[in-house]
Amino acid sequence: MALIVQKFGGTSVASVERIQAVAKKIKSFKDDGNQVVVSVSAMSGETNRLTALAQEIQKNPSSREMDMLLTTGEQVTISLLSMALHEIGCDAISYTGSQVSITTDSVHGKARIKSIDSSVIVESLEQDKVVVIAGFQGADEEGHITTLGRGGSDTTAVALSAALEADECQIYTDVDGVYTADPRIEPRARRIQSISYEEMLEMASLGSKVLQIRSVEFASKYNVSLRVLSSMVENPIGTLITSEDKIMEEAVISGIAHNKDEAKVSLIGVPDIPGVAYKILKPISKKNIEVDMIVQSVSAREGLTNFAFTVHRSDFKKSISILEKVREDLGAISVQSDDSIVKVSLVGIGMRSHAGIATKMFEVLHKNDINIQMISTSEIKISVAIDEQFLELAVQSLHAAFELEKE
Amino acid sequence: MALIVQKFGGTSVASVERIQAVAKKIKSFKDDGNQVVVSVSAMSGETNRLTALAQEIQKNPSSREMDMLLTTGEQVTISLLSMALHEIGCDAISYTGSQVSITTDSVHGKARIKSIDSSVIVESLEQDKVVVIAGFQGADEEGHITTLGRGGSDTTAVALSAALEADECQIYTDVDGVYTADPRIEPRARRIQSISYEEMLEMASLGSKVLQIRSVEFASKYNVSLRVLSSMVENPIGTLITSEDKIMEEAVISGIAHNKDEAKVSLIGVPDIPGVAYKILKPISKKNIEVDMIVQSVSAREGLTNFAFTVHRSDFKKSISILEKVREDLGAISVQSDDSIVKVSLVGIGMRSHAGIATKMFEVLHKNDINIQMISTSEIKISVAIDEQFLELAVQSLHAAFELEKE
Repeated sequence: MALIVQKFGGTSVASVERIQAVAKKIKSFKDDGNQVVVSVSAMSGETNRLTALAQEIQKNPSSREMDMLLTTGEQVTISLLSMALHEIGCDAISYTGSQVSITTDSVHGKARIKSIDSSVIVESLEQDKVVVIAGFQGADEEGHITTLGRGGSDTTAVALSAALEADECQIYTDVDGVYTADPRIEPRARRIQSISYEEMLEMASLGSKVLQIRSVEFASKYNVSLRVLSSMVENPIGTLITSEDKIMEEAVISGIAHNKDEAKVSLIGVPDIPGVAYKILKPISKKNIEVDMIVQSVSAREGLTNFAFTVHRSDFKKSISILEKVREDLGAISVQSDDSIVKVSLVGIGMRSHAGIATKMFEVLHKNDINIQMISTSEIKISVAIDEQFLELAVQSLHAAFELEKE
Repeated sequence: MALIVQKFGGTSVASVERIQAVAKKIKSFKDDGNQVVVSVSAMSGETNRLTALAQEIQKNPSSREMDMLLTTGEQVTISLLSMALHEIGCDAISYTGSQVSITTDSVHGKARIKSIDSSVIVESLEQDKVVVIAGFQGADEEGHITTLGRGGSDTTAVALSAALEADECQIYTDVDGVYTADPRIEPRARRIQSISYEEMLEMASLGSKVLQIRSVEFASKYNVSLRVLSSMVENPIGTLITSEDKIMEEAVISGIAHNKDEAKVSLIGVPDIPGVAYKILKPISKKNIEVDMIVQSVSAREGLTNFAFTVHRSDFKKSISILEKVREDLGAISVQSDDSIVKVSLVGIGMRSHAGIATKMFEVLHKNDINIQMISTSEIKISVAIDEQFLELAVQSLHAAFELEKE
């Protein structure tokens, strides 16, 4: 017997029929002798419907009242799902976030969970019930209802898993796992059986939007084994996200991630004196612009250096105008910009112990005549910025070279 | 400065526009220097929408899960109403039933309030906020969410008034008060300024469906002054329902109520022996049929008696078939039945001290050639059953004879 926490998102419970399908899935786990705790989101569309009602009344409604409003969405789902379970002969009971003491801080709209008192849940499990809990919500210490913000239902499931010391936390979604590359770009991409938290974090931060980064961080912190699987198929296997020591056979490279949301800005011909990087990046960070890759290179002209970095495309124009100002102050030659780059990254824990991964990557790109504009590395990741026209070619040739299609 | 509790039903908050109108009304009381606590129902239509969803899943859903589902209705309203108050510059805060510790028993779907801890409300009032509370709902001692059943939002408002020792509990509805008679039958009917709890209970039980009987009983028990008024007009006055001693000038007769929901069944020629009434009514009450008026009269034949009573029309056929069986057992002559009767009642606390009211009533009916089929009296009410064709004539002639159109 295992204790499993399952999370179903808004799409999985979008209609009565889907709720009934979810109930069947839950029952099959229960019938296999497991204890099951379920966390669900609002039926998809419901949050938008409620938000539109609020918008008719106020442009910027109080976040406390928005939380009061939006949390009704999951409360509807938990009651309907419990009924669907009853209907197929599976005992179940629903609880709101406050009822199971999911205690958060008081930051309405994006609260963080401080503690969960699992006693009510444990008691219901001992009565052989499936416990259905409203995701995305909690209450602060004064009893005010809060929401956890984006990805909140995933976070609820992970937090419940940690509090209950569950054997596995299953996140049902509309994809059937994490892939070695985006299957729309590399058709031979393969579903990964298991992946470490660190790799998943790198993949997630690079645009593989299977899970919210926060839930993965949370799972890692509390050592909760996460499984991402499809709610649309029978008996899905999905991808297990767990700690490094629980992964049996480690691949050198787990996958290739890419990110099309970045743009490059460069300051050309900056006097190469101490403090240049600081003087360039300070006004950028002051405007809350996040910088990803950074490269400082020697200029063709003596005593001068070139400084380039990438920002999110939404910050592209703002960054250029800041750099124009910096160019004047520092007496640099020009500002260059390029919003047609992509970032392609190899991710894998195995890199740590395998030298030459970077060399092989650069060789593959070179053979395909793909010019590398920027490089950045971490312990388990190598990223390059290239022109976006080479995205497919780069992903496909790297996927083949590292034999990622093979188990 | 007064402390006012206001209750707005589903029709009053049926749309964003109506919620905004309600917010204005609340603000005007607040601006007059009052403290205001508001209890609201779900937007009309919402309860039906949610019930239909549940019905798609289960014919007879668990009442606990139904309560979980339906209580989201008021939660939506309280948040939207708070936003509407914020938008017009009126500070407000919303609370669910559980958040203000409206503690009930555990009878889901028709729970009764056991206690209210007013401390959270008082604290918010002291912060100069309008306090908006979800009606119709509470939680039992284990924290399970309950609903109070029909008329529940009225009950919430009255219970809040009692707990807070409010100066007045205003129930906004789609009628502008309690009338001396049904205005559809007697166009000269006049709105009553104030009426005692006992009179209101008699009026309500006789079909004047302005307030649920339970809320009036509750108000009476805790001595809460209730005011029924229209949410559709500006500055409504309505009718005050309060204790007898607070009513200044007492009318002998407060109003005329009528009830078209009853039917008469009679057993003719029953041997006049002890225990006959018991033997006739026992099988009726065993089937949970409620009996209203009862008349036992001497039969034309010696040693025999006639026994008649009224039941709700929905129990009419069932009652006849039970009586047929009783007729056989008791050796009575026949069963007679009549579902074309109406009950017309004079209600007034003043009756206690004024003799001759009944005589005058019977005289008026006699002068109009209206045959009285049954009579029943209480301390503050005289009811007669008459043929339904005489309803208008009876109400209008009595209204005129007792000069009810005059203040």
